Amino acid sequence: MSHTLLVVAHPRTDSLTAEVADRVHRRLRAEGSTVDLLDLYAEGFDARLTPVDEPDWENRDKTYSGEVHAHMRRMEAADDLVTVFPVWWFAPPAILKGWIDRVWNYGFAYGRSKPRLAGKRMLWLGLAGGSRDEYAEAGLDTVMDTQLRVGVSEFCGIRDARLRLLHDAELSGVPQALRADRVKEILTAADEVLDAFRPDTAARA
Amino acid sequence: MSHTLLVVAHPRTDSLTAEVADRVHRRLRAEGSTVDLLDLYAEGFDARLTPVDEPDWENRDKTYSGEVHAHMRRMEAADDLVTVFPVWWFAPPAILKGWIDRVWNYGFAYGRSKPRLAGKRMLWLGLAGGSRDEYAEAGLDTVMDTQLRVGVSEFCGIRDARLRLLHDAELSGVPQALRADRVKEILTAADEVLDAFRPDTAARA
Repeated sequence: MSHTLLVVAHPRTDSLTAEVADRVHRRLRAEGSTVDLLDLYAEGFDARLTPVDEPDWENRDKTYSGEVHAHMRRMEAADDLVTVFPVWWFAPPAILKGWIDRVWNYGFAYGRSKPRLAGKRMLWLGLAGGSRDEYAEAGLDTVMDTQLRVGVSEFCGIRDARLRLLHDAELSGVPQALRADRVKEILTAADEVLDAFRPDTAARA
Repeated sequence: MSHTLLVVAHPRTDSLTAEVADRVHRRLRAEGSTVDLLDLYAEGFDARLTPVDEPDWENRDKTYSGEVHAHMRRMEAADDLVTVFPVWWFAPPAILKGWIDRVWNYGFAYGRSKPRLAGKRMLWLGLAGGSRDEYAEAGLDTVMDTQLRVGVSEFCGIRDARLRLLHDAELSGVPQALRADRVKEILTAADEVLDAFRPDTAARA
C-alpha cells in the first residue's frame, strides 16, 4: 500500500480544480492508497517565505518554522506527491509556489549527498484554460515542464516526475448546455493521467 | 519626466536584492524619474488570490477588492514597470507571483480590445544564485523569459519588455574577503541593465 500527499491549490471548493482533486483523491483511496490531503487554501498556508524559513547555505541542518517542519514531515511520509492546481499565467498559483519556496528547503529537499526525496514519485497536474495548440504556439507548453519537473522535482532527486496539463479547462466560454460534457472530458483526461501514473506505484507496492 | 513603479520582492531589507533595488531607485530618481516603490513584503501584500479577486470571464468590468484596485491604479500611473526579485526555483518568489495573479487581472491587464497597459515598458530584473552556464545547461535560461516577458508582459500588450538575470548573486559561497568585489560586480551589472533600459525612456520623456 502506498501513501500519497495530495496538494491542492484553488481558492474555491466548487471549482473544477477541486472536482478533479476530489476525483483523484477518491480513486487513490479506492485503489488502496492512503491519502494525506493538503488543501493549501483550506489550511491557510501563507505563501510568503520569511527569514525564519530562508535557507542558510552554511547550515543545512537549520531549524525552520514549526509549520514548515510539519509540512516536511508530511512530504517525507509520502511515497507519491501529487499536486492539482489551476494554471495561472503559465505557472502554478502563488500559494503553490510558496509551498515550494518554503517547504522544499535547503538540507531537506536538496543539498544532501543522498537526496532525501529520491525514490518518491511526483505528478504535477495542472488545469489550463488555453488549448494545447495555444500553449504550443507561444512556446509555453514546455516552460512549466522544465520549471517544475526539471527545476523542482529532478533538482531534488525525484527522477520519476511528470507534468500533465488538462487543457480547455475553463468553462465560462462553453455554452451551458455543453458544460457537463466538457467536465466529463476533463475528468476522463484526469483519470487517464492518474492511470498512467499509478501502474508503477501498484507494481512497487 | 517619466514615472516608474518599482516592485521589490525580498523578505529582508539587508538583502542583495534590496541593495540592487535601492540602487535602481536612486538612479531612476537621479535621472529625473519619479518612483513609486512597492515593497511587497513591507506592504504586507497577501499573495493568495481569493474569490473576490478571481476573474469573472463574463464580466470584464468586475469590481475586485479595494486593495487590488489600488494596485491597479499604481500600475496605471506608471510609464515604466520595474520588478526586482530573487530567483527562487527558476521563478519569481510567491509574493511576486501573487501580485501578478491578483493585480494583473481580467478587464484591466488583459481582455480589452485596446490593452490598457500597452505603451508601458517593463523590466524584470532577477538575482540568480546559479551561473549563466548552469542555467543554460538545464534549459532554464529561457524559461523565465518565456513565462514573464512573453506570458505576462507581451500577453498584456507590453511589447517593450525584457527579462534580465544577474547571475552568481548568492554570496554565501564566496569567501568573505571577496564579497565586496562580488557585490560591486552585481551592482555594476544592474547599472548596465538599467542604462540599456533607460535610453528609450529618456528619449520618450
